[in-house]
Amino acid sequence: MVTSPFSLSPFGQARSTVTGNPLDPTELNQMHGFWRAANYLAVGMIYLRDNPLLREPLQPEQIKHRLLGHWGSSPGISFLYTHLNRIIRKFDQDMLYMVGPGHGAPGFLGPCYLEGSYSRFFAECSEDEDGMKRFFKQFSFPGGIGSHCTPETPGSIHEGGELGYCLSHAYGAAFDNPNLIVVGLAGDGESETGPLATSWHSNKFINPIRDGAVLPVLHLNGYKINNPSVLSRISHEELKALFEGYGYTPYFVEGSDPESMHQAMAATLDHCVSEIHQIQQEARSTGIAVRPRWPMVVMRTPKGWTGPDYVDGHKVEGFWRSHQVPMGGMHENPAHLQQLEAWMRSYKPEELFDEQGTLKPGFKAIAPEGDKRLGSTPYANGGLLRRGLKMPDFRQYGIDVDQPGTIEAPNTAPLGVFLRDVMANNMTNFRLFGPDENSSNKLHAVYEVSKKFWIAEYLEEDQDGGELSPDGRVMEMLSEHTLEGWLEAYLLTGRHGFFATYESFAHVITSMVNQHAKWLDICRHLNWRADISSLNILMTSTVWRQDHNGFTHQDPGFLDVILNKSPDVVRIYLPPDVNSLLSVADHCLQSKNYINIIVCDKQAHLQYQDMTSAIRNCTKGVDIWEWASNDAGTEPDVVMAAAGDIPTKEALAATAMLRQFFPNLRIRFVSVIDLLKLQPESEHPHGLSDRDFDSLFTTDKPIIFNFHAYPWLIHRLTYRRTNHGNLHVRGYKEKGNINTPMDLAIQNQIDRFSLAIDVIDRLPQLRVAGAHIKEMLKDMQIDCTNYAYEHGIDMPEIVNWRWPL
Amino acid sequence: MVTSPFSLSPFGQARSTVTGNPLDPTELNQMHGFWRAANYLAVGMIYLRDNPLLREPLQPEQIKHRLLGHWGSSPGISFLYTHLNRIIRKFDQDMLYMVGPGHGAPGFLGPCYLEGSYSRFFAECSEDEDGMKRFFKQFSFPGGIGSHCTPETPGSIHEGGELGYCLSHAYGAAFDNPNLIVVGLAGDGESETGPLATSWHSNKFINPIRDGAVLPVLHLNGYKINNPSVLSRISHEELKALFEGYGYTPYFVEGSDPESMHQAMAATLDHCVSEIHQIQQEARSTGIAVRPRWPMVVMRTPKGWTGPDYVDGHKVEGFWRSHQVPMGGMHENPAHLQQLEAWMRSYKPEELFDEQGTLKPGFKAIAPEGDKRLGSTPYANGGLLRRGLKMPDFRQYGIDVDQPGTIEAPNTAPLGVFLRDVMANNMTNFRLFGPDENSSNKLHAVYEVSKKFWIAEYLEEDQDGGELSPDGRVMEMLSEHTLEGWLEAYLLTGRHGFFATYESFAHVITSMVNQHAKWLDICRHLNWRADISSLNILMTSTVWRQDHNGFTHQDPGFLDVILNKSPDVVRIYLPPDVNSLLSVADHCLQSKNYINIIVCDKQAHLQYQDMTSAIRNCTKGVDIWEWASNDAGTEPDVVMAAAGDIPTKEALAATAMLRQFFPNLRIRFVSVIDLLKLQPESEHPHGLSDRDFDSLFTTDKPIIFNFHAYPWLIHRLTYRRTNHGNLHVRGYKEKGNINTPMDLAIQNQIDRFSLAIDVIDRLPQLRVAGAHIKEMLKDMQIDCTNYAYEHGIDMPEIVNWRWPL
Repeated sequence: MVTSPFSLSPFGQARSTVTGNPLDPTELNQMHGFWRAANYLAVGMIYLRDNPLLREPLQPEQIKHRLLGHWGSSPGISFLYTHLNRIIRKFDQDMLYMVGPGHGAPGFLGPCYLEGSYSRFFAECSEDEDGMKRFFKQFSFPGGIGSHCTPETPGSIHEGGELGYCLSHAYGAAFDNPNLIVVGLAGDGESETGPLATSWHSNKFINPIRDGAVLPVLHLNGYKINNPSVLSRISHEELKALFEGYGYTPYFVEGSDPESMHQAMAATLDHCVSEIHQIQQEARSTGIAVRPRWPMVVMRTPKGWTGPDYVDGHKVEGFWRSHQVPMGGMHENPAHLQQLEAWMRSYKPEELFDEQGTLKPGFKAIAPEGDKRLGSTPYANGGLLRRGLKMPDFRQYGIDVDQPGTIEAPNTAPLGVFLRDVMANNMTNFRLFGPDENSSNKLHAVYEVSKKFWIAEYLEEDQDGGELSPDGRVMEMLSEHTLEGWLEAYLLTGRHGFFATYESFAHVITSMVNQHAKWLDICRHLNWRADISSLNILMTSTVWRQDHNGFTHQDPGFLDVILNKSPDVVRIYLPPDVNSLLSVADHCLQSKNYINIIVCDKQAHLQYQDMTSAIRNCTKGVDIWEWASNDAGTEPDVVMAAAGDIPTKEALAATAMLRQFFPNLRIRFVSVIDLLKLQPESEHPHGLSDRDFDSLFTTDKPIIFNFHAYPWLIHRLTYRRTNHGNLHVRGYKEKGNINTPMDLAIQNQIDRFSLAIDVIDRLPQLRVAGAHIKEMLKDMQIDCTNYAYEHGIDMPEIVNWRWPL
Repeated sequence: MVTSPFSLSPFGQARSTVTGNPLDPTELNQMHGFWRAANYLAVGMIYLRDNPLLREPLQPEQIKHRLLGHWGSSPGISFLYTHLNRIIRKFDQDMLYMVGPGHGAPGFLGPCYLEGSYSRFFAECSEDEDGMKRFFKQFSFPGGIGSHCTPETPGSIHEGGELGYCLSHAYGAAFDNPNLIVVGLAGDGESETGPLATSWHSNKFINPIRDGAVLPVLHLNGYKINNPSVLSRISHEELKALFEGYGYTPYFVEGSDPESMHQAMAATLDHCVSEIHQIQQEARSTGIAVRPRWPMVVMRTPKGWTGPDYVDGHKVEGFWRSHQVPMGGMHENPAHLQQLEAWMRSYKPEELFDEQGTLKPGFKAIAPEGDKRLGSTPYANGGLLRRGLKMPDFRQYGIDVDQPGTIEAPNTAPLGVFLRDVMANNMTNFRLFGPDENSSNKLHAVYEVSKKFWIAEYLEEDQDGGELSPDGRVMEMLSEHTLEGWLEAYLLTGRHGFFATYESFAHVITSMVNQHAKWLDICRHLNWRADISSLNILMTSTVWRQDHNGFTHQDPGFLDVILNKSPDVVRIYLPPDVNSLLSVADHCLQSKNYINIIVCDKQAHLQYQDMTSAIRNCTKGVDIWEWASNDAGTEPDVVMAAAGDIPTKEALAATAMLRQFFPNLRIRFVSVIDLLKLQPESEHPHGLSDRDFDSLFTTDKPIIFNFHAYPWLIHRLTYRRTNHGNLHVRGYKEKGNINTPMDLAIQNQIDRFSLAIDVIDRLPQLRVAGAHIKEMLKDMQIDCTNYAYEHGIDMPEIVNWRWPL
């Protein structure tokens, strides 16, 4: 039952929603030439180490030993690149091209080289035969460049190594860049991932007045590694409905015949870009921002388009067999070598490149010039565009702490006020991101200057505390993936941001943050990549106050993952109170090229440090709290250390109890805010020298370390330290269900009673005197638990505990 | 512009696609009563600790001190429960109800108690006033039960703590259960997550002949914690298009008026279930499986339906303010207490419950009986239905290894043959899952007995190696989230499975595996939950052979996350060769209640162990390889240990070189397959005693440990061991770009040369003799790297290395 001219097969004359022949024969010829040259380069990159222009018949020794790279999606990627070139010139348009199927880097690198951008950043890959040879050889070659759109790729801010983030990155780049159109090419394989499937909804978070636009292009290549893709095998009607349902107007461009496909794509892009301009113009002239139906394009082309039809009798073009290298065995199989040569010559390189091996001017002319080039745009090297944040003085947002440990305050609320003013000072290049939790996380003061962005439908009741606005700069969607993708791209295009999330569900974006860390790590070695702002993640609603939500909400393991990344890139802070949180946040917001993880709970907690002490402690990272210690400069009997708000409170209570029980006991209290101070200085730039570590933690006294997360992480950081043998760590050990905060602490033995017992157990001099006290402490634990199980809340004595006992 | 009777506001008379009045007044009254009772219980759970039937006016002391729970989605959840009861009875239907917004557990627990299921599993919560009081008090109460559909919830296999997995779980439960309909209620907040957004496409993976059906119900509650949900604020037309695009026929049921809503929902479910039966009947009678348009339901009801309209002048019902507890301050605010009492009395408990506090028979009659009840169905306690796998003898699939370290074979290919026969023996309760990678991962032998499931459109070329079939039992979709969700539910409903994935991208499902581990951990303490099969994940295409794909594909950190979970639940194996992989896989497939992670690369690797040795080594977990050692029962000078295939090969090569250079050096070679043997026995049930550990690793000799993943993980496992101070671990330390395998090893210092240098550096007796050898080894590293950068491949001598040198 044919209900439309569209079919599931990409072969034949172009079929398209928008028709027309906007290209005159000259331009058509130029564009087709540019694309042929790009395809020629893609094949060259995959196969050749010499004879780049086929000046002589191809010999086996000119072929790489190991054939790597993804041919399949490359022709589609370069086809679109070629057409975007025309659009940039025609409309003098700022444009960024984000390639979801980044594995098909040859399709991006080829045009990037042809337009001259590649040689601009890598002079050795010059626009001549010798440069082309280097350009070919280095591709996916040891010591060379990767086979994705890696950081080494000029014009890329999206590697496409791990799939799924193309559109969230595209939208993040478009925020607050009103003159920019980001073309996001989403692969049909990638489109099966969860993160990509929901990121289509990002169109509900674009304001046509202040933001740029995203033009998503779904590349229906048909196949993944070995399978058809889901979206390529549903009916045209379903496909159309799907994207209409996502809120777009889909325009289809399907086929394989080059000439008609060029005309169809040119007509379609003309139409879509005009539609975008029209939407923007209307919104900008009226000042009324409503959600339009943004255009998107479905581009259905054969996988491995223009490549070998058949190899050894098996279908290749338009099938999954063209996913990577369509044929190998070049050194053993002369027929394959011959087929490769014929394939490459089918692009007629002699028509495209001059004697020197430079693309002829007629073809190069279709590319824009200078920074308008997709490979040279500063939007893809956002550090160039980055303006530092105008920072309010964070000291003004602190609270007075006359006596440590005597007053309580919610830790994150003042941070919210600080972020409000950061926002107010930077209303075009700062945003706050969170999955429907900024109020829950007590950062709601931000709404006083900028509300939650909302441009979908409004209802009357939204007036009553909805905090919604189409001008809002707080981004809330229940998708950590989408938020993280938006933020990453917002930073990569030179802006600033802050992400607050429930600690346990940071794991949802483990893989994304991993990948961003890898990107930052590589960029450190590329001198042409300018510095960008750090990725700042506040993990709040932490494990110790998820007693009521239960086991699923208790998982502080994100730190373990982050610590696997390069020490040049990752930082972890556990400020225990309001003033230290402000100091840490101020530092993180101004830092560059890092991933900063800040762990701090949102609930009311005891306050320990006035602003001066907080700044000093944050600067030092690890410090003795004199007011809680009684070793007075001498060697203590025991070191009590803590990292994290609740662990600090419990460790202090244990210290107070022990000092009461054993007045002669000398206890040193050490607070750890900058976790990576614990690592040896040889392992992390923040690491303390052994001498400093030893002077804080002693070389032979017991250390009881009360830690926010899984306890073994502290061992991992400190196993080389002199006194590691005496280090005893408490932390979360997966003992959770529905508890009270105190009961949860007791189950995991980070509570004051357990810690005091730990000290008694480790000091021989307390063995006798401590025996009955241990019994008493155990009884107190039981009392606490019983009280909790009876009343559903913690004992008031414990909740109201203040320093000193 | 009104184009349909549907609106974004859920208030008023029912509006529905299917109309009719199938309920006669008696049935309507019964159903409404059942639902009122359920709502009454939901409120009671959140608020009351006494006076459960309101026999007397409500007093502050009868209210819980801490008010917890999510009222907002509860009425919708119980509304659907009530209607599913009718369907089960009417069609004698096997049904499983999966609640995505599991936070709204009161909406599930209420009906579960009313139908008698709850009391069946928890006798103390009997069907009388005293039982109801306990039932109320324990909810979200320390020592009681959680506020989600936790493992303690009869009828639940989906907790809904972390959002996003409702539909993938629903589909996984439906596979191979032809008589089952799984109703998956997806929240509109949850629907914004990536995993949920793509899991709608699971309808392309259901075979109407052999599988059951999923009836997704989108619950348009309108709001998340503090925000409108995206799907509740797009037009009816967009919403309809979206689900048509996903391949469903959406049926809308919207409104708030109870009577008309009951009629509309009954009519709609009658229609949908009949449609499902019709689809199945047609496919089953003709034997032709094609993808139908399955029905789905959009249920738009007010958030907090039937709850307080306004509290303190703020809108509550139908707004986000009803998300959790609609009003607090019960002990201080008499007006709130009064409003609560009025609210509860509005359900007229005296009409619903008899003198004993038992639901009156007229209302209870609408629930099914026995195992048909949603709270009692064995599908939700899958261990009851589980049949053990019929296992072929894995020994038959091994390869001959006459001399260790002399032949090469791809490690995973024989596993593929083994899995093929596991599949052949278990064609109704075993499936293989992988993200478009089973061929790439060399498990393709499975296709000989069962192909990849495919029921979307076919094209002619699929004949040529497509390996697709609507009968296939290999599940491939480019969404690790969806696969993991399918598999978890397949296991939870009593079946078996195996998941193979690229190691680096296992991180995509970190959070899901975490949550499954937590589920399993809790189940260990519930004697009524029967044992289920383990979750088996093969991580292949590992870091050391992702040299060509580059940095993004190199991440062995999943193990760090897994190790944070309860030792009662997690197991990690690193078999280095074919025979050990088979032995491990056989063990894992037959194990129960674990998460087994198997790390083994797919490429050709040296083979070390014949089947007998492999079984012995796997059983012991850590063992001395006598053939590679020359300490002959005495104390060695150094211990060389390895875990993982490439690390083993490099450690063996280092051992061979060292023995050649220093013939008097006594080296012991220790192979670690069961990683958790390294932990103390007090920490993990597999842990070696200190005595056994010391006898393997000595108490004072240097240990060079070559590890597959990040090196500090070994320290974390062993820091308490006697000889930890002499343990030197090599592993991946984020030094990767485009390399050869050898160059990647060298960059991270897990290569033979680095290891030999490590030994020389740690043995004073080698200092003099070893000096020039160290220089030579360093030169060899440089030669290897240079060769790789010149030729693009590793030096043939290295690739062809065999034991002994």
